[in-house]
Amino acid sequence: MSTVRSEALDPNDWIARENRKRLEANRVFSLNLISGPGAGKTTLLERTVVRMRDWTRMAVISGVVHRGGDAERVRRHGVQVEVVQTTGAGHLDSPGISRALDAIDLPRIDLLFIENVGDLIGPAEVDLGQAMKVVVLAATEGEDNPLKYPDAFRRAAALVLTKIDLLQHLDFSAPAAIRRARTVNPELLTFPISCYTGEGLEAWTDWLTNQVTVRHRVARA
Amino acid sequence: MSTVRSEALDPNDWIARENRKRLEANRVFSLNLISGPGAGKTTLLERTVVRMRDWTRMAVISGVVHRGGDAERVRRHGVQVEVVQTTGAGHLDSPGISRALDAIDLPRIDLLFIENVGDLIGPAEVDLGQAMKVVVLAATEGEDNPLKYPDAFRRAAALVLTKIDLLQHLDFSAPAAIRRARTVNPELLTFPISCYTGEGLEAWTDWLTNQVTVRHRVARA
Repeated sequence: MSTVRSEALDPNDWIARENRKRLEANRVFSLNLISGPGAGKTTLLERTVVRMRDWTRMAVISGVVHRGGDAERVRRHGVQVEVVQTTGAGHLDSPGISRALDAIDLPRIDLLFIENVGDLIGPAEVDLGQAMKVVVLAATEGEDNPLKYPDAFRRAAALVLTKIDLLQHLDFSAPAAIRRARTVNPELLTFPISCYTGEGLEAWTDWLTNQVTVRHRVARA
Repeated sequence: MSTVRSEALDPNDWIARENRKRLEANRVFSLNLISGPGAGKTTLLERTVVRMRDWTRMAVISGVVHRGGDAERVRRHGVQVEVVQTTGAGHLDSPGISRALDAIDLPRIDLLFIENVGDLIGPAEVDLGQAMKVVVLAATEGEDNPLKYPDAFRRAAALVLTKIDLLQHLDFSAPAAIRRARTVNPELLTFPISCYTGEGLEAWTDWLTNQVTVRHRVARA
């Protein structure tokens, strides 16, 4: 006879842990992309998928609040996109991700993007089982967003600063925004990117490729 | 002896109703400004306050998630700003507004702006007791936001489309965004505005002045 200790784990966190085990067992590198509405997550995914599809097998789980969304924009580049509706909630949750994972052939992919709904608050708190969170901030938003919405920046491994082609027309200082983000999270990697001109995309896809490769190398070792 | 019927009103809605009664009793016109992070609510408030302060007595309740925020930016124009912390939540609630109203001399103001935290999802659902909700969308966000976050647009009386000076540099069609917003809410008033050039501000402050005046006229009648 043995005694079972209750772990008092939140059900979302319990299911997130299961998701993480499934992803790791299949050597899938997974990112949970978090941003406010309209920061450019879908355009970033489109550009990323087109750059990487020759050597990386990818899938996307895309969160929408009600309907609509941009699944078709990514799907047309030949990538599987599973849509998860939050039906009003401001973030995806781990059970939704678990169901979406059921529809993806995990042993056949290397890289999974989870595109959260457009919200800097809810998604920052909620674990989905991803390997890393990535926060996406547009240069057209405020430099102060890292201080106003610190959780999203604190819990992210990387910051993608989008729409930098517009910096010349804006009162926005990229170094100031990055400095503020690093006040909250000194370890934050930063990728300033213009999906319009392509500037910065190479550093981003190099980093992703590296993360994927490391996982395959570990798998072979 | 009488029978009391339970109204089964949500506590937030109950307190919102009390807030609304207080504001109406004092002939205060009140707006709940809702947008994603970085859409430009604070800059809009700054420009609005400076244009209207000679003939309108205003106050602002400003929501922040943790700390920071932009209260000082508005306060320096001579307007009382009460800050309400949501401590992690993605929207203001009616008890927070009730406490902030305690700190404002309501008979001495005409117009109250409630600047919600930067989020298009939570704030759309939650009644604070305001006369009207106003949704603020930046031209630098997606044209599709009205379809992706329909509640915010459905429950608003007006849409302020900010940062229109950047339209020339963007793949964003203001008519398309407004058309999509009107699919969700055919009654929506729209104010395209550049706080940078000043374009469109007059129509917005004229409308606000009109709303305030109507309330004073009713009060005198």
